[in-house]
Amino acid sequence: MTFLEKVALRQQQTKTQLCIGLDPDLSKIPEYYHTKPNPISCFTKDIIDATSHVATSYKLNFAFYEQYGIEGIKALEETKEYIPAEIVTIADAKRGDIGNTSSAYANSIFTQLQFDAITVSPYMGRDSVEPFLDYENKCVFVLALTSNSGSFDFQRTTINSKYLYELVIEKCLEYDKKATVGFVVGGTHPAELATIRSTIPEIPLLIPGIGSQGALAEEVMQANGKGPAFFNSSRAILYPQIEYPTYIDTVRIKAEEFAASLPLQSR
Amino acid sequence: MTFLEKVALRQQQTKTQLCIGLDPDLSKIPEYYHTKPNPISCFTKDIIDATSHVATSYKLNFAFYEQYGIEGIKALEETKEYIPAEIVTIADAKRGDIGNTSSAYANSIFTQLQFDAITVSPYMGRDSVEPFLDYENKCVFVLALTSNSGSFDFQRTTINSKYLYELVIEKCLEYDKKATVGFVVGGTHPAELATIRSTIPEIPLLIPGIGSQGALAEEVMQANGKGPAFFNSSRAILYPQIEYPTYIDTVRIKAEEFAASLPLQSR
Repeated sequence: MTFLEKVALRQQQTKTQLCIGLDPDLSKIPEYYHTKPNPISCFTKDIIDATSHVATSYKLNFAFYEQYGIEGIKALEETKEYIPAEIVTIADAKRGDIGNTSSAYANSIFTQLQFDAITVSPYMGRDSVEPFLDYENKCVFVLALTSNSGSFDFQRTTINSKYLYELVIEKCLEYDKKATVGFVVGGTHPAELATIRSTIPEIPLLIPGIGSQGALAEEVMQANGKGPAFFNSSRAILYPQIEYPTYIDTVRIKAEEFAASLPLQSR
Repeated sequence: MTFLEKVALRQQQTKTQLCIGLDPDLSKIPEYYHTKPNPISCFTKDIIDATSHVATSYKLNFAFYEQYGIEGIKALEETKEYIPAEIVTIADAKRGDIGNTSSAYANSIFTQLQFDAITVSPYMGRDSVEPFLDYENKCVFVLALTSNSGSFDFQRTTINSKYLYELVIEKCLEYDKKATVGFVVGGTHPAELATIRSTIPEIPLLIPGIGSQGALAEEVMQANGKGPAFFNSSRAILYPQIEYPTYIDTVRIKAEEFAASLPLQSR
């Protein structure tokens, strides 16, 4: 099954375009989990149980696991294995290095950890991106226009009357590939997202920034139109103010609300 | 002790500017190690024993450890702990993400793993780099002009009659910092290295590409002049053709040859 077939199948099951970001942070995880032997994987398993019915995909933020050393990496592996097979898994690792090193990263993410997709930084160019693209049935989301304020520093600089992020999209689509190429475009830039969509209507986009970073689901969804998209929310789902009987009830209801605000668009 | 004080002290001890890259690759490690319970850390410990007398710094390439999962991460931690305290340690991890995520990566590398320095990708701009710069006595090597062929794709594009890599250097020097800012400049671009050096004579540069990637020590050293530099060689030292009685003898002699070709320049 190709990556896009898996996505389409899962979207048909959930009827949403919701991607849930897993950013485990011990300082924010409820007290209750701290008494467990493996607080991180215990917490993320409960999150998955509470939200998998509305999750088209989960995006695991590697930094948040790596900061806890070996225990964090074990939790990452356990979490990945716990995610039901029909749900798309994205390794948010922002990797990218010279060719032989990118090959090692790709091996780690796709072969060892068996993720469906990864985020990759384009700064080092073709031979840093192509090793990730050498995997059938996988997707490589290259950073184009990211959701953060620093995106103005370099991504929006102009090269021959073109933004750097536009050049990144253009070049990466030319690279040799067996995998699907996608891009990261922050939901915090809806006007630019709409322009990008008009040039690449069929390319999958990972669109972070919904929720805590301030992007509004409806506005971002309208900017994206009908192209294949992963609208990601992390903190707003994982760490809500308790509004319902329990913490996990609140997580479930928040996820359902986000999912409902991101309905699958008929194509 | 500041980062640059540690570097100066170590350079006085070794009289070289050699940085040895540790890129463990099971397919290249001698057969002998494969019978050990922990082949990677066993191999890298032998490499450190054979080369530490001529190493100003070791650069650990994270991809090569991560590709072996938990065992690889354990080997990374063991290798880091095994490196004598007076030798500078560089986490070659090419990290960079939105603010709160970069903070988690910085915590992982500087607080948990206690490296002296890290490599960081600048593509996401100020708030992706500054969390790494918030650590005293550490060094952050931001990718400027990398050693690989892909460096021509984006880094050498022109923005207002300036190369992107020049803009990266200019901007990153303006960021808020407690750490030392350094840059990665590939030894495969000696002319550009000389130009960069003329504008930032005192900034530490991590200069990969000596050896297997084709840069010549003498030429690169001349281009760099007297500025603080880490001339890195990885594969040419770790995986030599056996020329002396044993594999490890060959590694030691190769490292000594590289060290001799990269003498400390009197300032």
